[in-house]
Amino acid sequence: MSKKNMFLSDLMPVNKAQHMISSLIKNIGTEEISLEDAYKRVLSKEIVSLLNSPPFERSAMDGYAIRAEDTFGFSENSPAKLKIIDTIGAGQVSNTIIKAGEAVKIATGAPIPKGANAVVMEEYTVSQNNDLDVEISIAPGENISPMGEDIETGDIILKKGKILKPQDLALIASAGYSEIEVFKKPKIGVITTGNELIMPQKNISGAEIINSNHYTFKSFVESALAIPTVVHCFDSEKMVEDTFETLLESHDGLISTGGTAISKGDVVVDVTEKIGEVLIHGVALRPGKPFGFGIAHEKPIFLLSGYPVAAMVQADVFVRNNLYKMQGINITPQYILKIASKKIPSSLGRTDYIRSKTENRNVKPLKIKGSGIIRSMVESDSYIIIEENIEGIGKGEECNVLTYDSLIV
Amino acid sequence: MSKKNMFLSDLMPVNKAQHMISSLIKNIGTEEISLEDAYKRVLSKEIVSLLNSPPFERSAMDGYAIRAEDTFGFSENSPAKLKIIDTIGAGQVSNTIIKAGEAVKIATGAPIPKGANAVVMEEYTVSQNNDLDVEISIAPGENISPMGEDIETGDIILKKGKILKPQDLALIASAGYSEIEVFKKPKIGVITTGNELIMPQKNISGAEIINSNHYTFKSFVESALAIPTVVHCFDSEKMVEDTFETLLESHDGLISTGGTAISKGDVVVDVTEKIGEVLIHGVALRPGKPFGFGIAHEKPIFLLSGYPVAAMVQADVFVRNNLYKMQGINITPQYILKIASKKIPSSLGRTDYIRSKTENRNVKPLKIKGSGIIRSMVESDSYIIIEENIEGIGKGEECNVLTYDSLIV
Repeated sequence: MSKKNMFLSDLMPVNKAQHMISSLIKNIGTEEISLEDAYKRVLSKEIVSLLNSPPFERSAMDGYAIRAEDTFGFSENSPAKLKIIDTIGAGQVSNTIIKAGEAVKIATGAPIPKGANAVVMEEYTVSQNNDLDVEISIAPGENISPMGEDIETGDIILKKGKILKPQDLALIASAGYSEIEVFKKPKIGVITTGNELIMPQKNISGAEIINSNHYTFKSFVESALAIPTVVHCFDSEKMVEDTFETLLESHDGLISTGGTAISKGDVVVDVTEKIGEVLIHGVALRPGKPFGFGIAHEKPIFLLSGYPVAAMVQADVFVRNNLYKMQGINITPQYILKIASKKIPSSLGRTDYIRSKTENRNVKPLKIKGSGIIRSMVESDSYIIIEENIEGIGKGEECNVLTYDSLIV
Repeated sequence: MSKKNMFLSDLMPVNKAQHMISSLIKNIGTEEISLEDAYKRVLSKEIVSLLNSPPFERSAMDGYAIRAEDTFGFSENSPAKLKIIDTIGAGQVSNTIIKAGEAVKIATGAPIPKGANAVVMEEYTVSQNNDLDVEISIAPGENISPMGEDIETGDIILKKGKILKPQDLALIASAGYSEIEVFKKPKIGVITTGNELIMPQKNISGAEIINSNHYTFKSFVESALAIPTVVHCFDSEKMVEDTFETLLESHDGLISTGGTAISKGDVVVDVTEKIGEVLIHGVALRPGKPFGFGIAHEKPIFLLSGYPVAAMVQADVFVRNNLYKMQGINITPQYILKIASKKIPSSLGRTDYIRSKTENRNVKPLKIKGSGIIRSMVESDSYIIIEENIEGIGKGEECNVLTYDSLIV
């Protein structure tokens, strides 16, 4: 007879459970991919430039490569008179050497010809046939980008762990790479359990409940930049065991929903214990007490509640950062301080994650209903977090807030 | 002869160009998709619930459905004595009617049997065969979730324009939908131009430059939740025209890089004028002056600079929000105020987007080099924006900052 299981004294503190899980999660290895496909991927080693960029001294403008000293003292009313002796388009190289009084028409990005030390913008010139009037006095170096101005051969341009943005890809390309090594994206098996669950439909009957977790956790895994496979199991130990074993062969971890309450058959917990080891079962978290965590075949198994909101909170508290960690992304949730717009009761001995709505410097706890109330997750934008040693927050007091957006990379 | 084109007097103010473009961009229509694939998609109409959720009065806990009044006044030392007359698992319905002194074992989520008005958690009971001791006095309604507690049939649960998160998908599923109508994702053709451009490689020679824009703008389009096709063209009017026309047949808009400076052949501008209309050419933006915008076959064409940083700034200023708008997402960049940690010069008559790095309440402008310096985009996290009627910011003064992260949905 299981009596008084999951009473507070048996529950693992949230912080302890978080640390235990994180300490067991490692990245799942690396792979070589095309730079084309690298948006939001994570570098698994630093990038050292193979090249100078720009690879040569080049013109930053459309205009004329000249000797700056030929323009000194000249102006619109008294222009310098030069001779155009050549034209260099983008992608062209010229062997011309510029001497005093000479100019070469040059396109943005083209290599500066020998002898020139500045480029005058076309807008400050008047040309007719080969005669060029320069109506401005310019300084040496003007409108010239030096070789290696952006990056030099051998520069470390990006570090391991960097999540790649468009500008990072541009820099890597300029450094000479079309392929890079990144951390693999974890493949995650999601197993929803429950005999009562059906897929969404207009007509439901009896004790049927729509399996919203199917959608929540497919997209949750996607939001964590991982790759989901979602299957449903009835509350059958054999079916769950077969599914766990099959998915573990081809996936890097599992997330299950349902069947974690101590008092029930606890199919997923029993199966995890059978094929591996259950390390956590029951945490001092509200909502979300019946959370479990285990390892089988050296892969993590996250056992979430069947109740939608409890499961979402558990996923935010214990799963998301670990899916990131599996692909080399280390993030620690950053609390912000906000002022509670009403009193928030809490009990000692458990950590509360209270759905809330921020508004400027304030945060308002939403009316807290059951852990099945999905709408509260939709209407909130954050959690107020009340640590287990705090007995509640008074109206007007500061409290720790974690916005949902801040959890997503 | 093109003299003094793109002088300040001819340039369109940034705000005016932004408004002109936005006023011409519409969403590109809707499609029906599986709810499974709806993460980060955008609702094109409100969702009205087809169902009550929960669809029946259900147990919020594993325990025993009872009549609350049978427990009044009882406690651990003096438990109420009840008879267990039935068991209801998840997914089961019972026709049993509970009378005084009776209890039905019930699983979380199962429908409450007739006659019961509360559920006592298993942890507060001791059972032996059919005898049940209840060691607590509970109130009517305890651990019962009313029918429709989360949503009721006919409720508007989500509005048009909502970008869907995991919890939104859960709510939509619970409302009875497995398919939903969303805005289509725009397909965007990206055309890099330039004879000098080559794909990344270790050995480059002559006037060759690596085509970093290929990577920047493929991923830029991805970051805007749109679908890119990237092709390269030499600076040939025929090749560009054929490519523009071909891509416009199957895409919702184009982005080109390179060839926008007035003084050159201006291939992309000329082609756009030929197949449609150029509405903007030259804006009072730094970096990024030679930006162009046109419409052909009723589709937008964004003409960006070839220089990587100028092109990225133009894309942030003029393109990203419009790619969002094409899929029903309306966002307005939200400036934040930060304190300039050093003096920032600026000229009247143009809007400066200065790459910068935020640090708590401060922001530091990065040393500004040429518009080809990609590393400055990598090392910065924000723009300091200096509007055209402001002549610079003093050290210690507040300035408008736009973080890169805030631009991304």
